[in-house]
Amino acid sequence: MALKMHSAVQIVGACMLWTSVSSIRYLPNWNSLDTRPIPSWYDDVKIGMYIHWGVFSVPSTYYGEWFWYEWQTSKYKECVQFMNKNYKPDFTYADFAPQLTAEFFDPNQWADLFKAAGVGYTAFVAKHHEGFCNWPSKYSFNWNSMDVGPKRDLLGDLAAAIRARTNIRFGIYHSLFEWYNPLYLEDKMNNYTTQKFVESKVMPEMYEVVNKYKPEYIFSDGDWEADDTYWNSTEFIAWLYNDSPVKDTVVTNDRWGNNSRCIHGGVYACDDKMNPGHLIKRKWENAMTIDKQWAGFRRNAPLSDYLTIEELLAILAETVSCGGNILINIGITHDGLIVPIFEERLRQMGAWLDVNGESIYATRPWSNQNDTLTSGVWYTSKKQGSGLSVYAIIQNWPTGQTLTLGAPVTTSNTVVSLLGYPNTFRWLPASPVGGIVIQMPYIPVSRMPCQWAWVFKFQNLAN
Amino acid sequence: MALKMHSAVQIVGACMLWTSVSSIRYLPNWNSLDTRPIPSWYDDVKIGMYIHWGVFSVPSTYYGEWFWYEWQTSKYKECVQFMNKNYKPDFTYADFAPQLTAEFFDPNQWADLFKAAGVGYTAFVAKHHEGFCNWPSKYSFNWNSMDVGPKRDLLGDLAAAIRARTNIRFGIYHSLFEWYNPLYLEDKMNNYTTQKFVESKVMPEMYEVVNKYKPEYIFSDGDWEADDTYWNSTEFIAWLYNDSPVKDTVVTNDRWGNNSRCIHGGVYACDDKMNPGHLIKRKWENAMTIDKQWAGFRRNAPLSDYLTIEELLAILAETVSCGGNILINIGITHDGLIVPIFEERLRQMGAWLDVNGESIYATRPWSNQNDTLTSGVWYTSKKQGSGLSVYAIIQNWPTGQTLTLGAPVTTSNTVVSLLGYPNTFRWLPASPVGGIVIQMPYIPVSRMPCQWAWVFKFQNLAN
Amino acid sequence: MALKMHSAVQIVGACMLWTSVSSIRYLPNWNSLDTRPIPSWYDDVKIGMYIHWGVFSVPSTYYGEWFWYEWQTSKYKECVQFMNKNYKPDFTYADFAPQLTAEFFDPNQWADLFKAAGVGYTAFVAKHHEGFCNWPSKYSFNWNSMDVGPKRDLLGDLAAAIRARTNIRFGIYHSLFEWYNPLYLEDKMNNYTTQKFVESKVMPEMYEVVNKYKPEYIFSDGDWEADDTYWNSTEFIAWLYNDSPVKDTVVTNDRWGNNSRCIHGGVYACDDKMNPGHLIKRKWENAMTIDKQWAGFRRNAPLSDYLTIEELLAILAETVSCGGNILINIGITHDGLIVPIFEERLRQMGAWLDVNGESIYATRPWSNQNDTLTSGVWYTSKKQGSGLSVYAIIQNWPTGQTLTLGAPVTTSNTVVSLLGYPNTFRWLPASPVGGIVIQMPYIPVSRMPCQWAWVFKFQNLAN
Amino acid sequence: MALKMHSAVQIVGACMLWTSVSSIRYLPNWNSLDTRPIPSWYDDVKIGMYIHWGVFSVPSTYYGEWFWYEWQTSKYKECVQFMNKNYKPDFTYADFAPQLTAEFFDPNQWADLFKAAGVGYTAFVAKHHEGFCNWPSKYSFNWNSMDVGPKRDLLGDLAAAIRARTNIRFGIYHSLFEWYNPLYLEDKMNNYTTQKFVESKVMPEMYEVVNKYKPEYIFSDGDWEADDTYWNSTEFIAWLYNDSPVKDTVVTNDRWGNNSRCIHGGVYACDDKMNPGHLIKRKWENAMTIDKQWAGFRRNAPLSDYLTIEELLAILAETVSCGGNILINIGITHDGLIVPIFEERLRQMGAWLDVNGESIYATRPWSNQNDTLTSGVWYTSKKQGSGLSVYAIIQNWPTGQTLTLGAPVTTSNTVVSLLGYPNTFRWLPASPVGGIVIQMPYIPVSRMPCQWAWVFKFQNLAN
Repeated sequence: MALKMHSAVQIVGACMLWTSVSSIRYLPNWNSLDTRPIPSWYDDVKIGMYIHWGVFSVPSTYYGEWFWYEWQTSKYKECVQFMNKNYKPDFTYADFAPQLTAEFFDPNQWADLFKAAGVGYTAFVAKHHEGFCNWPSKYSFNWNSMDVGPKRDLLGDLAAAIRARTNIRFGIYHSLFEWYNPLYLEDKMNNYTTQKFVESKVMPEMYEVVNKYKPEYIFSDGDWEADDTYWNSTEFIAWLYNDSPVKDTVVTNDRWGNNSRCIHGGVYACDDKMNPGHLIKRKWENAMTIDKQWAGFRRNAPLSDYLTIEELLAILAETVSCGGNILINIGITHDGLIVPIFEERLRQMGAWLDVNGESIYATRPWSNQNDTLTSGVWYTSKKQGSGLSVYAIIQNWPTGQTLTLGAPVTTSNTVVSLLGYPNTFRWLPASPVGGIVIQMPYIPVSRMPCQWAWVFKFQNLAN
Repeated sequence: MALKMHSAVQIVGACMLWTSVSSIRYLPNWNSLDTRPIPSWYDDVKIGMYIHWGVFSVPSTYYGEWFWYEWQTSKYKECVQFMNKNYKPDFTYADFAPQLTAEFFDPNQWADLFKAAGVGYTAFVAKHHEGFCNWPSKYSFNWNSMDVGPKRDLLGDLAAAIRARTNIRFGIYHSLFEWYNPLYLEDKMNNYTTQKFVESKVMPEMYEVVNKYKPEYIFSDGDWEADDTYWNSTEFIAWLYNDSPVKDTVVTNDRWGNNSRCIHGGVYACDDKMNPGHLIKRKWENAMTIDKQWAGFRRNAPLSDYLTIEELLAILAETVSCGGNILINIGITHDGLIVPIFEERLRQMGAWLDVNGESIYATRPWSNQNDTLTSGVWYTSKKQGSGLSVYAIIQNWPTGQTLTLGAPVTTSNTVVSLLGYPNTFRWLPASPVGGIVIQMPYIPVSRMPCQWAWVFKFQNLAN
Repeated sequence: MALKMHSAVQIVGACMLWTSVSSIRYLPNWNSLDTRPIPSWYDDVKIGMYIHWGVFSVPSTYYGEWFWYEWQTSKYKECVQFMNKNYKPDFTYADFAPQLTAEFFDPNQWADLFKAAGVGYTAFVAKHHEGFCNWPSKYSFNWNSMDVGPKRDLLGDLAAAIRARTNIRFGIYHSLFEWYNPLYLEDKMNNYTTQKFVESKVMPEMYEVVNKYKPEYIFSDGDWEADDTYWNSTEFIAWLYNDSPVKDTVVTNDRWGNNSRCIHGGVYACDDKMNPGHLIKRKWENAMTIDKQWAGFRRNAPLSDYLTIEELLAILAETVSCGGNILINIGITHDGLIVPIFEERLRQMGAWLDVNGESIYATRPWSNQNDTLTSGVWYTSKKQGSGLSVYAIIQNWPTGQTLTLGAPVTTSNTVVSLLGYPNTFRWLPASPVGGIVIQMPYIPVSRMPCQWAWVFKFQNLAN
Repeated sequence: MALKMHSAVQIVGACMLWTSVSSIRYLPNWNSLDTRPIPSWYDDVKIGMYIHWGVFSVPSTYYGEWFWYEWQTSKYKECVQFMNKNYKPDFTYADFAPQLTAEFFDPNQWADLFKAAGVGYTAFVAKHHEGFCNWPSKYSFNWNSMDVGPKRDLLGDLAAAIRARTNIRFGIYHSLFEWYNPLYLEDKMNNYTTQKFVESKVMPEMYEVVNKYKPEYIFSDGDWEADDTYWNSTEFIAWLYNDSPVKDTVVTNDRWGNNSRCIHGGVYACDDKMNPGHLIKRKWENAMTIDKQWAGFRRNAPLSDYLTIEELLAILAETVSCGGNILINIGITHDGLIVPIFEERLRQMGAWLDVNGESIYATRPWSNQNDTLTSGVWYTSKKQGSGLSVYAIIQNWPTGQTLTLGAPVTTSNTVVSLLGYPNTFRWLPASPVGGIVIQMPYIPVSRMPCQWAWVFKFQNLAN
């Protein structure tokens, strides 16, 4: 439904409709909130930068950002042994905080890198389940990045750099619950019949962070142990949509209570690394990680734990083809760095997008997502002038002299080209009822438009 | 007025009257609260142990427990230079907390020492102006002694030891305000028209600490920037007197707002080191320190900054003589120790009280406080059987063969003795209208009952 | 000359000749020492792994392994500011040592990675100019990896793993001088007329390290401020060649004094990153780094400071073509890790060598080094059976349908193939006097034998 | 014998004889070295300040300066548990060094305090068994107070302050052996048939420290595992007496080898806290500690572990009476402080010496040491004019009206006085054959010359 309204927005023109949409006041219930269209910028940019940074960046090892919990509650052997071996006996998680030194944090460098990578928005961890605020929150005295560790407003500094140097929409990740906040634990003990934690901590800090930093994207998380009435979610979202300083452009997701997730709210995020492989009508998001295991930086992750650029581009193609946005995570080191392997993946993706971005940005799902004959091929589409361009993103270059695809139905005017390559391609219909056989000319490796994943563009197809 | 009711309690007998008093419910206003008599134990024990321990015990130097403020707000040179010289540039006060290691903290040892010193109650710093809680408060996540630094419930462990090994009443010191708590600063900025800090922090933590640890003495402090309506003081005290687990025996002071201090509340504390030198009718307390300058332990305090035992006993005598209790402070080291110079003073005082305690405990002010002729002499009195014993505590032993005092008016039955000495003394009236001349026998130094401050006891005086 | 003898060794057979060579006793002078042939394994393996790890891995930033010197002596701004900003004022270099924690050091992982990378020997930093010994030296009390920091015998643990899991020859890097060793500074002040440092530190530790760990390669360094007589170089090398436990197989270099470097000794190392671009007759070594600037790991080195795999393979080809060995450096983190970007380069090189190793290992320089017509082409050669195979390593795949090379002179029997590709290639002579034009078939990118740098093999050439 | 020569020196006059003595050159054997008289200043000043400071001041707890050994070799439970509980598993002793911060070290304050205490020389720990040098030794790279920890020349700074502000003779303590120096351990393993440690470490550093800091007292220690030939002791002492910059005034002791201790050398030190209770003819020294257990500062030593001033003065009197010097130890904190309990003892002793120093300084043993009738009485004597004054130092003031002493034999001219008291005392012979009964006048406590230990002076006795 959201998608349908969104289409309406597209047709009539964003500006005009938004004016009228904005005059609507949403009520603090899902029936009302769910009617709000997702602001169009979100579907156009497709790719977000997910950034995990927190006290977990100090141990920076087993279970990544979940280290505290897996150490203290799950008591997983790797964590317990790591602590036993390397720290004094009564070392606590809070003791890590002074080592979150951030001395090399350069938000301008980050902004430039994100721009080069071709992303359109960020989800910077404002606060994770550990409760440590990456901004000087009034509601987290001595457990925030200004009072201990970095001694900086990490959130504010990054927001400023991104806004000054790029057109990227600045957004945040925010966890509702905090594993070990005693007020949360008290509410939990009371079966969520009390709301001490929500009233004195969560809501004040969310209003604070929105008013102060004006994030246009809010990845809510940590909702799953209680329902939306405990979290006061609908009240907050109603304010966000009606009265907040980002009411016209803000996008949020669906993780606002164990009865809301995958059902209500803005973008469907459902679970991490959601990637259905088929079209989802409602706008959704694939929050995934370059480190295949964890989002928080892990010092001892070997190369094999990182996605190759081929793997990353395959997930990107699949996600966009199926109607999703991709939110690509990198973990930050305790000293504020994006390590070279992440930088390499981001710059590789950016280089690929420089050539092939046309098949990603502002596209819409096509009638087919993956090809009916050849595997590893994902389609997107885009209105261009009066026609529709269709893009087939292929992961594997054909080893023979032809490429056969089942989904495109050709017309006599069909034109086939390869993004980044000067000439059009010769082709034949694959069968009377559809499909296409593309003739491959001799393109030496030194003339290929890119090293991994190539995009064929079809114009004037029948469908 | 409190004192008058207190006298009534004495006459009728504590138990019976307390029953009836306890059936009264106090209203949350000063008119009502001020009518509550101070539980009698407090006036009887006279001497309290004031104990400063907190994150300030880590820098443990210039300005003692006020280090943070004098460094960051006053920007006093000693503090700024100390930090510049010894710490990395962006070191914050919160960074000190992990070094509050407390590895030598032995509450049993403390309890035994306090007992040997002869004190009757404690005022252990539960939370100072820095806001760091020496117990695992739900309202101070990661800024308390369980989460960082000691990793212990300092308050609970001390309370348990004192109750298990002594008859000392366990009590606490608690600061209402916190210099740098952002919620407090916000209320302050709003001229105290908002109460975010009081509602989400101060009140919850005070109820928590009283319910959990049942302190029988609460030294409230840090009140002076706002009035009692901001602090919700009268509501809290009404609860404390009516419904708290310590309602029958708890004593508190008057530092509950800038319009309450020295006017309303329980014991008059007014200012630190209050020592008027004359009788105050309402029960008052002299909160003083063995380190003459600061209450927080200062590593670099030279010997000359510590009171000698002679000086300490002189202040004790003066305070008790004038109707006060003395609350004697020691500072604790970052590793949880009472350093030997403090132990020495406490054991010296205890040894003195072993001989002379009769002139201190359960005494009441006499008609005279200091002597009219001889300086350095302070009087106390006590009903014993049908008569009144009067004690003259002298700081300086006479260099000649007589001691002349102006205040005692003798009768023919007057008996003069020296506490700790076997024989009575010969004496003569000093003049027809009063006074006494005591004859000094030859008491070699090796037979003196104590080394410093001696107490003459008078029985059967005229007045 | 060394090369000539070396050829002799090859012809007669390594085993037999070595027996006789070994019966020679070398005298402690260059005339004698220079006659020793370099053991043949060294020229065969071509590629060494250079590994920098030390206390410099703690600051791990500007000027890499030279941090101490550039901070304290050069007083370079980046270093001074870095220290001023992040450390307490009197922080010394020695204070870094406890932070060399090495908790993730896994020598088995390293060994497996080096094997996968295709290297044949190591030069692990036993001691750099900082003087910190990566083994528990008797001559470096409390300034070695067992007493402070890692609390491990880093050298011993790595040697054991490499010997247990690979055929790689274990070797070390060792610095003669130590910037700030006071005994060295005293000798220096005395214009090297005294040898306190050499006698009590350098010589004892070198005998110790050789006797204990039996390194088959010794990269000597830090020689340049004094001559070989100060360092007692020839005595040490004579022992190394005559009597040490590695006398038959050990290889060393020429950095044994400012009058020996580039003149005497074993392998010519001359200067770092030596890469002459033309044939050097004596066996030489290109000690280079994947981080283009420094050998010590730099946390804040951006991706652009790392060699691409294309660049690395180009240097490898050039070096081997000109008669050198390549010693490829990686920097280790303070916690004992090889970061993923290094692992990626090493595995990429290993993957390339899996296909193309034939053109590198055990090859000898050909008559031509680089091609006379086409740039970016380097030649190697190898006797195979009765003939000589010649390898042309090309950096850039031709964009057209032919590749023209000037150096090969064809015969009618000449066979041209591409390593990793099944078919031979068609070719024509380029001119009557030599050269060749190779016809390129259509090889789609998905059938190319590797992604970067390809090797054409020529058999039965005229020359 | 030494004492005899010393008496000769006294008679003829120090200056003249020293000239001639100095022209003698001592041979490096005990026969010769033992003939050197101890410079007279040493016997005159009587009291030395022994100062323990080192890396052991960081753990600063169980077993004091022996912590390392008792932890690692004896494996005493307190030490092992202390480390297990408070430090990460692989924490080494060397890791303590950076915490020897010394930020409050003020050598001027120390000098003033030592002067006020009345001491005449120091034995400052230059290097203890741990091997850490409190000066920037060339022979202890990165294991000295300039390279790690204090970043100061502790020895040099203290020497300068003492010389600038007092007449105290600056001297040092120095340990020959180092528990864990690998060179020492190697020599030990070789049954001291090798001298690597002595040649490369001990001798160079001793020459360095004497040449650079010119100590007039050298308390040698750590000799007991080997004999003087291993240590090269006689060579060093011969240089010290013949050619060193302190040859005329330096005093050393007898701890120069397990065959020298208590037999040869300078002052007899034999064992720690040597205090024979009877006259020793050779000049000896009682190296004792105010902390009754250990010399290194122990944070958790309770008050009961410290000598009272009464106990300290009793030991002082006994030691001097029996011909010894007393070397009184204080332990320094990791931050460079003399804690108040030590300051108090030193100032109490200084106050006592202000009144009673006449009975200590420049005195000589009398015919009797302790009294024959009354216990707790120790005698000293001094030529004054043509007569001999005898001093009886009593620990306990008589509880009756007389004091009877057995040792003094009176004459009709005998005069008895009390140091610090204006009048002479009446007396009677105790019996026909000797002894004295002193009549005690009434001295009120406020007129006693001091609080503890009093000195009767006898002039014109028969003996």
